[in-house]
Amino acid sequence: MPSILSQSLALASQSLRLTSPNPRVGCIITTPDGRVLGQGHTQRAGGPHAEIMALRDAAEKGNPVQGATAFVTLEPCSHHGRTGPCCDALIAAGIRQVVAIHADPNPLVAGQGFARLRAAGIQVQVLPADDPLALQAHELNIGFFSRMIRKKPWVRLKMAASLDGQTALQNGASQWITSQAARTDGHAWRARACAVLTGIGTVLADNPKLDVRLVDTPRQPHVVVVDSRLETPLDAALFIAGRACFIYAAVPNDAKKAALEACGATVIYLPGQVPNTPDKVDLSAMLLDLAQREINELHVEAGHKLNGSLIREGLVDEFLVYLAPKLLGLGQGMAHFGPLSSLDDVIQLEFHNIERIGADLRLLARTEGHPNF
Amino acid sequence: MPSILSQSLALASQSLRLTSPNPRVGCIITTPDGRVLGQGHTQRAGGPHAEIMALRDAAEKGNPVQGATAFVTLEPCSHHGRTGPCCDALIAAGIRQVVAIHADPNPLVAGQGFARLRAAGIQVQVLPADDPLALQAHELNIGFFSRMIRKKPWVRLKMAASLDGQTALQNGASQWITSQAARTDGHAWRARACAVLTGIGTVLADNPKLDVRLVDTPRQPHVVVVDSRLETPLDAALFIAGRACFIYAAVPNDAKKAALEACGATVIYLPGQVPNTPDKVDLSAMLLDLAQREINELHVEAGHKLNGSLIREGLVDEFLVYLAPKLLGLGQGMAHFGPLSSLDDVIQLEFHNIERIGADLRLLARTEGHPNF
Repeated sequence: MPSILSQSLALASQSLRLTSPNPRVGCIITTPDGRVLGQGHTQRAGGPHAEIMALRDAAEKGNPVQGATAFVTLEPCSHHGRTGPCCDALIAAGIRQVVAIHADPNPLVAGQGFARLRAAGIQVQVLPADDPLALQAHELNIGFFSRMIRKKPWVRLKMAASLDGQTALQNGASQWITSQAARTDGHAWRARACAVLTGIGTVLADNPKLDVRLVDTPRQPHVVVVDSRLETPLDAALFIAGRACFIYAAVPNDAKKAALEACGATVIYLPGQVPNTPDKVDLSAMLLDLAQREINELHVEAGHKLNGSLIREGLVDEFLVYLAPKLLGLGQGMAHFGPLSSLDDVIQLEFHNIERIGADLRLLARTEGHPNF
Repeated sequence: MPSILSQSLALASQSLRLTSPNPRVGCIITTPDGRVLGQGHTQRAGGPHAEIMALRDAAEKGNPVQGATAFVTLEPCSHHGRTGPCCDALIAAGIRQVVAIHADPNPLVAGQGFARLRAAGIQVQVLPADDPLALQAHELNIGFFSRMIRKKPWVRLKMAASLDGQTALQNGASQWITSQAARTDGHAWRARACAVLTGIGTVLADNPKLDVRLVDTPRQPHVVVVDSRLETPLDAALFIAGRACFIYAAVPNDAKKAALEACGATVIYLPGQVPNTPDKVDLSAMLLDLAQREINELHVEAGHKLNGSLIREGLVDEFLVYLAPKLLGLGQGMAHFGPLSSLDDVIQLEFHNIERIGADLRLLARTEGHPNF
């Protein structure tokens, strides 16, 4: 049974770049003695969820599922969203038992799916939250869990630096510090994000597309720009048909707003608290707003000023750092905040994962305490 | 046979902190069919070498070694140094075969030991230089190989920094950025070095002992100070009875020199090339001089200025970097050199080894091309 659950989680992982803003979910339907009848994972938003895909797969294979067991990585939905409730489909198909890794993280609906199944006479089992598989499933959907529980996205800040912590020379040269392998890996992380965030400084300096090019992906992440004074050019490369572009501003400029919206952007005014920072975007409010817009994982690729603001305000959950085996000497650092007056005030992280990527290193470090939700 | 050689290398490793300036060498004497008769590793300088220890061990156990095979990690010496030649002892004991991992790296004596053994009718085998065991043996004695072949020490520069590459706050606070586990590990690296090098800035700011305290060691490394103007205080904590202290200066001050020498230091004037840097120590010449003084592995713990000079001059072979999972923001960087004008000019390294040490990371990175000797 754990091995089928583990397989269903592997299925869910296959939908890593596909399902946003829905969670990545896998489902395997088996006979009571464990023979697989059908399986599937959640499709792109608006498409069928994992349970429906598994039922369809069983039907296509001519496998009856009356009396079968459904292994799912997340509690089946009981509400009408973009699709009908999966609970109803499982009940209608005659499933007798449901084994789930996690309950729905949304406190408002958690358990409602299980209750509906049980009311229909289906036996329901759920793993304890500290089961290793449950922890893996939490990792797989960390942004979805974050949005449902904390009401804000999981914020992952990507940086590429030399071993001595420099992201560019003093003259700004930064292409390229890390290797092609690291840049490709970086695109894989973009691909799993719901949105990529940058600052107006990067837009004006580099005019980046911030799309996924170096790895295959079935969808492109949205793009978010922190642009206090609405300086984004109307011909910026990040305007790409078919993906949303959210521009957060602080200083109203309705003419420019209209022009940007004609380019396909959505402009949101979120000035900081008066009297201190009315000319800067309220980054904390921006994250709450992005969660309302169904952004689970927010992938930040910005310059050291915006990085510094996000860090200083404690808004970064995870640092995705590529370290190249190079020394750059005096250059531009990774994060512009401080100077601190005491080592008691440093931002304390935990190394979560370390991998070699080509000649470089990839370090995943989390802000202490942040993953506890 | 490879497994006995591998065991002899493990024996050699046990003498890691003991043999300086001699190489770490292990020897196992067996019957022709592989039964161990005696074994040993090189002792502290002036004491017996591995072969003598193994012969004594066999004698103590009452095992005759007539016709036996000696497995050694390095070519037995044929010269009278602090001790008699090991070749003569092996010949006199009636050893019939010698299997060695490496020839002596000193080009002036390489092969003389083997020739002497062969002339006495002993069969000699040596592993090819690219054998994995030969590479391990080279690593174990990388400083000795460096001194014999390049005529300068293997220079290992230790740094402790936050993930964002800061070694201290702007106000200088740096105790402690890394964990106790990392500091203990750092002492293990001090312990294997022949000498620890620092700069006068660190001496005046921190008055460090630079000895090995956090791990057990049978000997203390010597200490080396780059002190262009002979500003080392006479009561500096690094004057410790029983270990040598070499102070390299650029600006002559014979009165201070005499006073420091009365404290047990050896003062060496090595000014840089006129007309550019006569008031700074010629660091490259210093390394050649330290090799003359039998320093194999030089462990550098200095501030960012001396670090920067050593890096800029291409004198660092290996960086031993402890990275703490912390962000310090604007502070003091790892190496004060540059600013560079092009990314083509960066110092290119290779990650050699990555380990987690407590909550921190230890990165061993080598200057590209430097290990090729």
